[in-house]
Amino acid sequence: MTYRSGRHFLQIPGPTNVPDRILRAMDMPTMDHRGPAFAALGKEVLAGLKGIFQTKNPVVIYPASGTGAWEAALVNTLSPADKVLMFETGQFATLWERVASRFGLDVEVSPGDWRSGVDPALVEVRLKADTAHTVKAVCVVHNETSTGVTSRIAQIRKAIDAAAHPALFMVDTISSLASIDYRHDEWGVDVTVSGSQKGLMLPPGLSFNAISDKALAAVKDSQFPKSYWRWDDMLEANDKGLFPYTPATNLLYGLREAIAMLNEEGLSNVFARHARLAEATRLAVAAWGREGGLEVLCRNEEECSNTLTAVLMPEGQDADEFRKVALDRFDLSLGNGLGKVAGKVFRIGHLGDFNELMLMGTLAGVEKALRLFGINGAHGGVEAALDHLDGTPGG
Amino acid sequence: MTYRSGRHFLQIPGPTNVPDRILRAMDMPTMDHRGPAFAALGKEVLAGLKGIFQTKNPVVIYPASGTGAWEAALVNTLSPADKVLMFETGQFATLWERVASRFGLDVEVSPGDWRSGVDPALVEVRLKADTAHTVKAVCVVHNETSTGVTSRIAQIRKAIDAAAHPALFMVDTISSLASIDYRHDEWGVDVTVSGSQKGLMLPPGLSFNAISDKALAAVKDSQFPKSYWRWDDMLEANDKGLFPYTPATNLLYGLREAIAMLNEEGLSNVFARHARLAEATRLAVAAWGREGGLEVLCRNEEECSNTLTAVLMPEGQDADEFRKVALDRFDLSLGNGLGKVAGKVFRIGHLGDFNELMLMGTLAGVEKALRLFGINGAHGGVEAALDHLDGTPGG
Amino acid sequence: MTYRSGRHFLQIPGPTNVPDRILRAMDMPTMDHRGPAFAALGKEVLAGLKGIFQTKNPVVIYPASGTGAWEAALVNTLSPADKVLMFETGQFATLWERVASRFGLDVEVSPGDWRSGVDPALVEVRLKADTAHTVKAVCVVHNETSTGVTSRIAQIRKAIDAAAHPALFMVDTISSLASIDYRHDEWGVDVTVSGSQKGLMLPPGLSFNAISDKALAAVKDSQFPKSYWRWDDMLEANDKGLFPYTPATNLLYGLREAIAMLNEEGLSNVFARHARLAEATRLAVAAWGREGGLEVLCRNEEECSNTLTAVLMPEGQDADEFRKVALDRFDLSLGNGLGKVAGKVFRIGHLGDFNELMLMGTLAGVEKALRLFGINGAHGGVEAALDHLDGTPGG
Amino acid sequence: MTYRSGRHFLQIPGPTNVPDRILRAMDMPTMDHRGPAFAALGKEVLAGLKGIFQTKNPVVIYPASGTGAWEAALVNTLSPADKVLMFETGQFATLWERVASRFGLDVEVSPGDWRSGVDPALVEVRLKADTAHTVKAVCVVHNETSTGVTSRIAQIRKAIDAAAHPALFMVDTISSLASIDYRHDEWGVDVTVSGSQKGLMLPPGLSFNAISDKALAAVKDSQFPKSYWRWDDMLEANDKGLFPYTPATNLLYGLREAIAMLNEEGLSNVFARHARLAEATRLAVAAWGREGGLEVLCRNEEECSNTLTAVLMPEGQDADEFRKVALDRFDLSLGNGLGKVAGKVFRIGHLGDFNELMLMGTLAGVEKALRLFGINGAHGGVEAALDHLDGTPGG
Repeated sequence: MTYRSGRHFLQIPGPTNVPDRILRAMDMPTMDHRGPAFAALGKEVLAGLKGIFQTKNPVVIYPASGTGAWEAALVNTLSPADKVLMFETGQFATLWERVASRFGLDVEVSPGDWRSGVDPALVEVRLKADTAHTVKAVCVVHNETSTGVTSRIAQIRKAIDAAAHPALFMVDTISSLASIDYRHDEWGVDVTVSGSQKGLMLPPGLSFNAISDKALAAVKDSQFPKSYWRWDDMLEANDKGLFPYTPATNLLYGLREAIAMLNEEGLSNVFARHARLAEATRLAVAAWGREGGLEVLCRNEEECSNTLTAVLMPEGQDADEFRKVALDRFDLSLGNGLGKVAGKVFRIGHLGDFNELMLMGTLAGVEKALRLFGINGAHGGVEAALDHLDGTPGG
Repeated sequence: MTYRSGRHFLQIPGPTNVPDRILRAMDMPTMDHRGPAFAALGKEVLAGLKGIFQTKNPVVIYPASGTGAWEAALVNTLSPADKVLMFETGQFATLWERVASRFGLDVEVSPGDWRSGVDPALVEVRLKADTAHTVKAVCVVHNETSTGVTSRIAQIRKAIDAAAHPALFMVDTISSLASIDYRHDEWGVDVTVSGSQKGLMLPPGLSFNAISDKALAAVKDSQFPKSYWRWDDMLEANDKGLFPYTPATNLLYGLREAIAMLNEEGLSNVFARHARLAEATRLAVAAWGREGGLEVLCRNEEECSNTLTAVLMPEGQDADEFRKVALDRFDLSLGNGLGKVAGKVFRIGHLGDFNELMLMGTLAGVEKALRLFGINGAHGGVEAALDHLDGTPGG
Repeated sequence: MTYRSGRHFLQIPGPTNVPDRILRAMDMPTMDHRGPAFAALGKEVLAGLKGIFQTKNPVVIYPASGTGAWEAALVNTLSPADKVLMFETGQFATLWERVASRFGLDVEVSPGDWRSGVDPALVEVRLKADTAHTVKAVCVVHNETSTGVTSRIAQIRKAIDAAAHPALFMVDTISSLASIDYRHDEWGVDVTVSGSQKGLMLPPGLSFNAISDKALAAVKDSQFPKSYWRWDDMLEANDKGLFPYTPATNLLYGLREAIAMLNEEGLSNVFARHARLAEATRLAVAAWGREGGLEVLCRNEEECSNTLTAVLMPEGQDADEFRKVALDRFDLSLGNGLGKVAGKVFRIGHLGDFNELMLMGTLAGVEKALRLFGINGAHGGVEAALDHLDGTPGG
Repeated sequence: MTYRSGRHFLQIPGPTNVPDRILRAMDMPTMDHRGPAFAALGKEVLAGLKGIFQTKNPVVIYPASGTGAWEAALVNTLSPADKVLMFETGQFATLWERVASRFGLDVEVSPGDWRSGVDPALVEVRLKADTAHTVKAVCVVHNETSTGVTSRIAQIRKAIDAAAHPALFMVDTISSLASIDYRHDEWGVDVTVSGSQKGLMLPPGLSFNAISDKALAAVKDSQFPKSYWRWDDMLEANDKGLFPYTPATNLLYGLREAIAMLNEEGLSNVFARHARLAEATRLAVAAWGREGGLEVLCRNEEECSNTLTAVLMPEGQDADEFRKVALDRFDLSLGNGLGKVAGKVFRIGHLGDFNELMLMGTLAGVEKALRLFGINGAHGGVEAALDHLDGTPGG
């Protein structure tokens, strides 16, 4: 083993940097998952999650990756050959579409340019056209982790309502929950999918479904065979703070601590912090763009993600070769381009347990690595971010 | 919070006591699951698991409980309405059967008395009768965690062979792997299901499928819709040490440490240790039985589990009330009776990171709690175990 | 490295088993020892220690072993050639005497048999005879860690008072604090010496002086050169929650947690727990004595230590050879005989983070190791202890 | 408790950021300090320290702060009223002088300006004048933690040799060891004093004396009373890997890991890394000086410290008020001015477990906090550092 001095900068858009408090909380003896101490833990985290999802409804916890929670959302509520409306906002929307297709759902994919979010107007038009109500679900990725674009969930809800369409509304918040304002109840979402390893600051291994009454009601008509993902088993056991099969106990210790930490900071402060660090990042990219040719992938300012920024390299420059420089020289992990933007973008994660000086270290690493990689025009980004930040919520 | 002095005795049959080395290994920063350091980790654990399963074939790792790995074994290899042969050895066999039924498999359950393992002779008879080869899979729980009975997998393999039957052979080793000798390849098992939280000494959250060539070949004919559990995606990504979706990174850190620890001790020593601690436990129960009326649930000596002992209470005594006494007075968690033996048995887990003096503390707690509970005849078990143990592999 | 399965039984009379909560509390980033967060920590532990020492007076904390706190007690209050009265209760009293002698104090040692505590009557006689008040300090080890004998501090205080003697009263509570009732103020002790690694359940590295007003007043006449151990520097800095030189920050994190845990359990419950576990241990030794020839070293029942039991081996049996058997066979560390009783006794530590089942494991290990070592008469100790314990404070 | 997001930047010149590997190594059960496993640990760290001090001679380890190791160096080798030559290079030299004075040594202090190191020429002149050899020891602080000035130990050795003077040469390396090249043997140092919490990356709580043969020989003539600091007891016990009193076991676990990490990186790489990060820091300060009026406190380029930079504020600006801004706004702890430079300087620690991007975050925090504090001319420092660094040893 060779010791590499100092902290690694894990600035991919998740898994994010796990705070010491959470790692230490998880570093405790596993307990009897059927005993009274566990039941108290179970009740505490199940209740606490509701605040994070901004819901009064149940949130189920799977010992699984977010991919599993996508699958769970579909198989609990739908039936083979049901039509679902999806939007090609990027790689994760595409992967969710693949899950749906593998289950024999009739997926209608609305194409996208990987630089924009879902257009609410288009949703309204499409659903109004569906007078027969054949569309059973509308599935949207809130924050596309591959592109750094945040779709406007509240407006999409309004679009569905404007069409008076009964489709279930399912939203993936894997890279937005607990970082970008998200309101399961107020926005009338039926199934919210999320994961542990981004805004919740945990290691990967847990994923979630927040479930509306309407979604719960849909269960009885669902024809998919299922067992692991069954909400009914979950909800029944959850009533007593327990789980229908062995839960990932130590990750739940961490979840309890994460919820406590988010509440200590206050969710609105968490969102404001992410917003100002994201804004500083975009100012840096803009500076690098002036002579360096880089560009924020997200086209619309109002859709720019506050948890990550995908950066388009100048034409002909290989983003992955650049990322190697950042990793080798500065021990800085950046996210790679995925799917259609593979090799063309790199992604800076600025979410989770993160602050001003960690961002400044990150941007310094990106800027210098760009120059070392040969993009000599990559200047002034660090300065631009520094000018913007002053360590106060408004800064 | 109220501090309860000293260590909790977690003597349920899993999750087991997680060693400090493993908890500390997991208590490290999460890394980029697509980077080179992760790929090295992935390759190491995937290779190391083969030794534990005693196989040269691939073992896939799910971020999921063991329940998920049951489901994975079925949906990757079978199709709706396929006939599978299962054996009612206890609660976990029953739960696996429920998974199969929920997926529309045609499950034929061979009834059992919850005190015996699967009878190889019966397997042979049944399969010989299936001349049309309608049975597509034979599913056996190696070590029934609810009863403390270990089925004889090698003999069942011989029975299948004697019938020259092509059914897939699937074995659940959740509470036996890395504790009781188990040989995926030599015993011709097609899918071995296992989990992290027992003999592997990890917290719950990972589960496994070891896969024979025959099982792999069955994938192409499988008609179940599936995504999360797909072996093909897994195996393709595993080739590079990666996973098709975000893995439970920190649990993998722990898995690396667990494999190292098992190899340091030596698998054969691990098995011998479990055997002698189990034998001492049974001697203790036998002593309590003389005047106290307790009994080892397992009927056949050759099938007694080396990882847990289910103890039948005297007629009319509530095992769960007794367990409360053990927990309240001695901070000792014992396993509850499940399913048909609920309230009638308690279970002593003696597996995982465990040694002579931990066992002696455990047995002392059980014996005294039995007397405090009113079973005055519960005598001499501690002495009997102490006579048996001398801290040497043969002891 | 070779993994040895299960938990090590660290049953020496200190360092004791450090609870997970304390180890995890220490496993946090070191902070600026001059910043506001540190000052809050400093104030909290300095205040909390007063409750543990049962004093309203200051307690100073050294980054040092208990040996250093012995030295500190002497050099802050006395001057070269001062007469001090000490008592040869065992090895640690002897070592403290050596410290005093090395500093040129005129040490009068009252001889002892290493099986009894300090006789209050003898103290009274000696001090009454000292009409010139040449004796400047009376130094007593509360709980002799080498012999398992607890001297009666309250009665010794009465003896000093009966002689109306102005000598300072200094008491070493290294292996009794937070385990055996000890009252710095009520018992009129001038300097109480203690350490972190026994009843406080911390790793070694911190030691303490609790200081009476009279001891503080003595500082101005003390002629010893000193710097590291100076109380005046300490007390001045402590007023602000700080220290005059870099403190052992992470051990202080652990100290904060230890104080919290002791308060959660309640000091009187802590004392009662130690008393009943000690009584069970002595019953076990008595049983081993009947046919095995072992004996509790402490002669007087009222002086038997509640934190450790020193056990005298039968004539001609080497205690250290026996201890090797316990360590090799059962991974059980027992304390060795020290000084005059080296090779003749072994010591069982039953203090700190400890409970009934840990004791039963320990006693089982001792009993069986004694037999394996050849003392076949070592029987019935485990049974005797088990009969005594029932998991309730009175048990 | 209120969660403050992201990592704290602990950029005081020690205690330094403790790496996870070291914190986790310490987070393990305390062991029997007289048992065989401990002896192996003791031997390993005692041997490993020799490499770090670049000596073949013994290094003793105290459970104490560095202050204790200063005291130990003096009391083991000198006698009351001995003349020692000290140099007022800053606060820590002054504090060492105070220790010496408190012990009744006849300290001759060579005055200094707190901006320069010890002048070798002056040493030579002074010692040549001491034809009677009344000076018994020359004591130098290698790296003045209060000023960021590194004295030239090799040249001072030459000066002593040029004077053919037999005085002992004692050097404090508390803030230089394992960060700046230091050679106990080659440079003919008799006692090297050091501590755990800087370049060794451990929490505070251990300190060290590396001892030459000549220093060892001086012990027999030393007239100071002493016990805790005695080298003879230490060296005798160390021969078996043990200690004369209870060692700080868990800090020794950390020390073993620290030595391993330093060897993995390679000491020469460690020194080069500190040199380049220090150079970048000085370039930043120079930039802030152009319009902002800040200045590196160290006057001579060849004496600028590679572990910390003390920065002189513009006339009339309160450094401590500035430090509050850095802490409140950016969670950045900077070192305060001490003694004669209190309020006038702040100190940036850039030592220990530290890398390029951590430095960039630090410098960004300093630069922006300076501007927020009102020093609008503080510009360009971050840019200057970024230009200098490229993540390679030569960069």
